[in-house]
Amino acid sequence: MADTGWPGCAKSLKGVILDLCGVLYDSGEGDGVAITGSIEAVKKLKASDLQLRFCTNETQATRDKFVAKLQRLGFDICVSEVFPPAPAAIAVLKERRLRPHLLVHDGLLPEFDSVDKTNPNCVIIGDAAEHFSYQNLNEAFRVLIGLEKPVLFSLGQGRYYKETDGLKLDVGVYMKALEYACDLKAEVIGKPSTTFFQSVLNDMGLQPHEALMIGDDLLNDVGGAQHCGMKGVQVRTGKYRPSDEMHPTVTADGTVDNLAQAVDMILNQRGQ
Amino acid sequence: MADTGWPGCAKSLKGVILDLCGVLYDSGEGDGVAITGSIEAVKKLKASDLQLRFCTNETQATRDKFVAKLQRLGFDICVSEVFPPAPAAIAVLKERRLRPHLLVHDGLLPEFDSVDKTNPNCVIIGDAAEHFSYQNLNEAFRVLIGLEKPVLFSLGQGRYYKETDGLKLDVGVYMKALEYACDLKAEVIGKPSTTFFQSVLNDMGLQPHEALMIGDDLLNDVGGAQHCGMKGVQVRTGKYRPSDEMHPTVTADGTVDNLAQAVDMILNQRGQ
Repeated sequence: MADTGWPGCAKSLKGVILDLCGVLYDSGEGDGVAITGSIEAVKKLKASDLQLRFCTNETQATRDKFVAKLQRLGFDICVSEVFPPAPAAIAVLKERRLRPHLLVHDGLLPEFDSVDKTNPNCVIIGDAAEHFSYQNLNEAFRVLIGLEKPVLFSLGQGRYYKETDGLKLDVGVYMKALEYACDLKAEVIGKPSTTFFQSVLNDMGLQPHEALMIGDDLLNDVGGAQHCGMKGVQVRTGKYRPSDEMHPTVTADGTVDNLAQAVDMILNQRGQ
Repeated sequence: MADTGWPGCAKSLKGVILDLCGVLYDSGEGDGVAITGSIEAVKKLKASDLQLRFCTNETQATRDKFVAKLQRLGFDICVSEVFPPAPAAIAVLKERRLRPHLLVHDGLLPEFDSVDKTNPNCVIIGDAAEHFSYQNLNEAFRVLIGLEKPVLFSLGQGRYYKETDGLKLDVGVYMKALEYACDLKAEVIGKPSTTFFQSVLNDMGLQPHEALMIGDDLLNDVGGAQHCGMKGVQVRTGKYRPSDEMHPTVTADGTVDNLAQAVDMILNQRGQ
């Protein structure tokens, strides 16, 4: 019988999905800093027979610029391997003929260059950071409250993340704020949405049970992946907090010190 | 049998409680503007045999400055008749020996002059308006997430209010944001808290069924008062929206065009 526990389950894996911020690097001033051992760990995965994708809720930069940053940090990574929420959101806008009011980071705006934003009939919020001013949040609120059927898309629903100078509030916090202000439920594009994870699995041509997600966010990485049928392993880097290991509803399949340790355990199980 | 419906119930009333912003005046540049007929309506209530109190979630100024503003607008009103959340919050801090980190409007800070704010072990948020910056919200978040037992007080839980230049997000929106970020439940001080309404009733020496609340906020004024056992009448001024009259869970005992109309109906029923 196949071992379905961690790390035994690594024997039957066909692909690995990695979160980026908090797993490969810590964001902060400039490009941020690579987490010890993570550059080498990505190299080892690429040299293995496992497929590799990167699934992120990063919305502070276009995919191109974001990947260029990771390359500068020393990671062997290319644009087609990285799945952020913005391209998925643009697909939804086209499908539903929606014109967004954007409350996103300046760095993400070019991603929406081709999108009609006149006379908006929905709002998209991303991790706008300093742009989450009272004035900007009011503006997004007024667009929503003025619509007959207000539609709010949130690029992820994270609570907070860690930068080199401390914890910072993430987009989910402002999603909850606007949900309450307008008495509506936002549609989340990005992790932990099953649709989002499924699009990554589709790209690899794998079934959920053939893939493993490794992230620092217990709810959005681990819980989201598990809800989708994958295994989920949490690293003790990034936004990890010891209380995650006693969470009442989500239990990781495994908890490891960092990505390097996770990759070594996986490859060791596979005799590589 | 006594008429318990509106406006018949006015015959047996002993006191009236008025919300301020959106009922007496619309806030905005400078002192804002009095709502048509409201100055005269307050005069009429004062000349009647009804007790009168003002119950507000106003937290942008100290009670003294706030009342002075209302007097400048032409209202016959004095400090002891006005019940805002900040003095109630200070009583709770003293009782529970808590030291707050404050995320409130600059105008409210003097109210907390006598309060020990060193090494904070709770957070108080009020309607901080422009002070609800990303940086300030992060700061409040970091205080909370660093506490073993995080305690968040919210001075009211309103969604939005109307100023002369449009709708503005209220403190409740940021309360929900911090609740989600820290996975906690805030303690609300102010409307619609039953404790808060009860303190006003105690001051009048009345039972809930002897008093009527008039406000523009269906949930916090009308719903809160009803939950406490009072009648609640909504005015079609301030933040009123036509959809309030079809709300799934809260139905006002009466809906009137403005305070002037409400007062005329009350005094008419009482033959005054």
